[in-house]
Amino acid sequence: MDKPNLLVTNSFVKGGLDSLRQYANIYLLDDLDDAALDEVLPSIDCVFVQTWWPDSLTPERVRRMPRLRFVQSGMAGVNHIPFKELGERVTVSSNAGGFSVGVAEYAFALVLAAAKGIVRFDHAVKAGEFKPEDWEKMVHEIMPLRGRTLGILGLGGIGREVASMARAVGMNVIGFSRHPGGDPHVKVYHGSEGMRRVLRMSDAMVISLPLTKLTVGLISGPEFADMKGDAVLVNVARAEIVDEEALYKHLARFPRFTYATDVWQIKRGKESYSSKFPLLKLPNFIGTPHVAGGSSAITGEPGRSATDNLARFLRGEAPRNVVDPSEYI
Amino acid sequence: MDKPNLLVTNSFVKGGLDSLRQYANIYLLDDLDDAALDEVLPSIDCVFVQTWWPDSLTPERVRRMPRLRFVQSGMAGVNHIPFKELGERVTVSSNAGGFSVGVAEYAFALVLAAAKGIVRFDHAVKAGEFKPEDWEKMVHEIMPLRGRTLGILGLGGIGREVASMARAVGMNVIGFSRHPGGDPHVKVYHGSEGMRRVLRMSDAMVISLPLTKLTVGLISGPEFADMKGDAVLVNVARAEIVDEEALYKHLARFPRFTYATDVWQIKRGKESYSSKFPLLKLPNFIGTPHVAGGSSAITGEPGRSATDNLARFLRGEAPRNVVDPSEYI
Repeated sequence: MDKPNLLVTNSFVKGGLDSLRQYANIYLLDDLDDAALDEVLPSIDCVFVQTWWPDSLTPERVRRMPRLRFVQSGMAGVNHIPFKELGERVTVSSNAGGFSVGVAEYAFALVLAAAKGIVRFDHAVKAGEFKPEDWEKMVHEIMPLRGRTLGILGLGGIGREVASMARAVGMNVIGFSRHPGGDPHVKVYHGSEGMRRVLRMSDAMVISLPLTKLTVGLISGPEFADMKGDAVLVNVARAEIVDEEALYKHLARFPRFTYATDVWQIKRGKESYSSKFPLLKLPNFIGTPHVAGGSSAITGEPGRSATDNLARFLRGEAPRNVVDPSEYI
Repeated sequence: MDKPNLLVTNSFVKGGLDSLRQYANIYLLDDLDDAALDEVLPSIDCVFVQTWWPDSLTPERVRRMPRLRFVQSGMAGVNHIPFKELGERVTVSSNAGGFSVGVAEYAFALVLAAAKGIVRFDHAVKAGEFKPEDWEKMVHEIMPLRGRTLGILGLGGIGREVASMARAVGMNVIGFSRHPGGDPHVKVYHGSEGMRRVLRMSDAMVISLPLTKLTVGLISGPEFADMKGDAVLVNVARAEIVDEEALYKHLARFPRFTYATDVWQIKRGKESYSSKFPLLKLPNFIGTPHVAGGSSAITGEPGRSATDNLARFLRGEAPRNVVDPSEYI
């Protein structure tokens, strides 16, 4: 039997594909012009979409891949995958876990930078805006970590890693999860009432949930109202989990509340690094350009994790991290 | 016998003095005008200097305190104490340890913020200077923590706390100390050759040494030359431990090297929050206005630590953290 045909989109994770050549013929999307792409489409068995789903794989082209059975996402989030066009015959695996350490380190760094006021203090000094008479007020706005409570929304690979780091600096860690069980060291709450309890108890929070039909707009006005007025909220998941208007109103009303995000609303198919609200002018808003996951790539772990799972599929084994399309369509 | 007379300077740490009233008559410097101060000076047995040594306690006034036997510093650093005027009859205790947790948390937050590029990424996004085409370069400049080496210069209370936090996120921790022994989990190097080895091996470094005759200008040109070109150096001790000109030259030459400091050169008796070199314009310089120690005060721990030690002296017990004046004069 011929080897299956694998189409690899984007070239961000270079190398690492060699281990797959024993199982599949590999086509790189970047090497194919429109005509060549159209020629190989009917023979493609699986797609490795390394970052965002590419514009060139239009719904019309997806329909011209009748042999397609498997899509491996290079990212942990799969909300960009066109589940509707892929239909029920295609299995989609996320790269959950592949980024856990790097993203958790970044999330934890955002928690600490926000809790300690580093970004705004550095800005005040550099802009010549620091006034010695404000010093005592400033130091009282710095959050001690030891003994404070970190709430983790979503206890997947990233959430569990953050929990471990936070416990090590003496924080109490609680979590919100859909699933029972989880981390034995973390008190986990479930359901909407459970989430409210986490929001109310936490001094700092990390969002590490997937973006699904269930989580889009999950954090809106009522949820902000449940949070402490001087809490820290970190988002390393997807911007759309937080309602942007409610966020802006909350930050404007509670200047000691800090929102630190690495993720941004998608506009016209791309992350915007901006907001229709004047969020970026607020000193209690910290924003970085979705670098947490990318930084993991240095270690090679996300690439290994994704290609290992692809190899499982190509060898006829059951792939891991299969997602439920009904949560996304 | 009459109770000893205690002069308390500055009123930063309010409260907490009540526990000392059973042992001493307390005079608050802020309550005394010049005439009243001059009247009590001859009867003062000990001084609690809560922050910097006050201008009003001039050398001439120090000479008018013949009964003075003990000075308790509210700060961990004692380089501001006028050891020469105090002479050999006065014992000086630092507040080493009182700030350990708060300063260590802050130092660790600076390490993480610098390693992950949070300050400059946030600045780039907010200034509209982030270019998507720079993204891949940017993410490759983010330092993973797990498996990297943190070098701690000075393994007192702060250094040991930082070591514990860094190990918990999977960093290898090494240290430089004058003293043998120390933390069993940290490989400690001694002497000037030992310090060079720490500088050469470390991906990130924290300075948590006292400022003494031995450490002033300790980190200068040759020491920077020993460091990795993309390392992180955090200073939560005293600015004068680092030669400012050598620092500026190093940061200008190695844009991927980051210096993050909470401490500043003393100019005309005050911390300057500025530099005669254009340090503050460099994107690889992070500076915050000496808030790490102050932030500890929220927990009350520094005040407790200092007053506990004062109580030891006042009860006739041997005070802890006695400093060697010969290291400062």
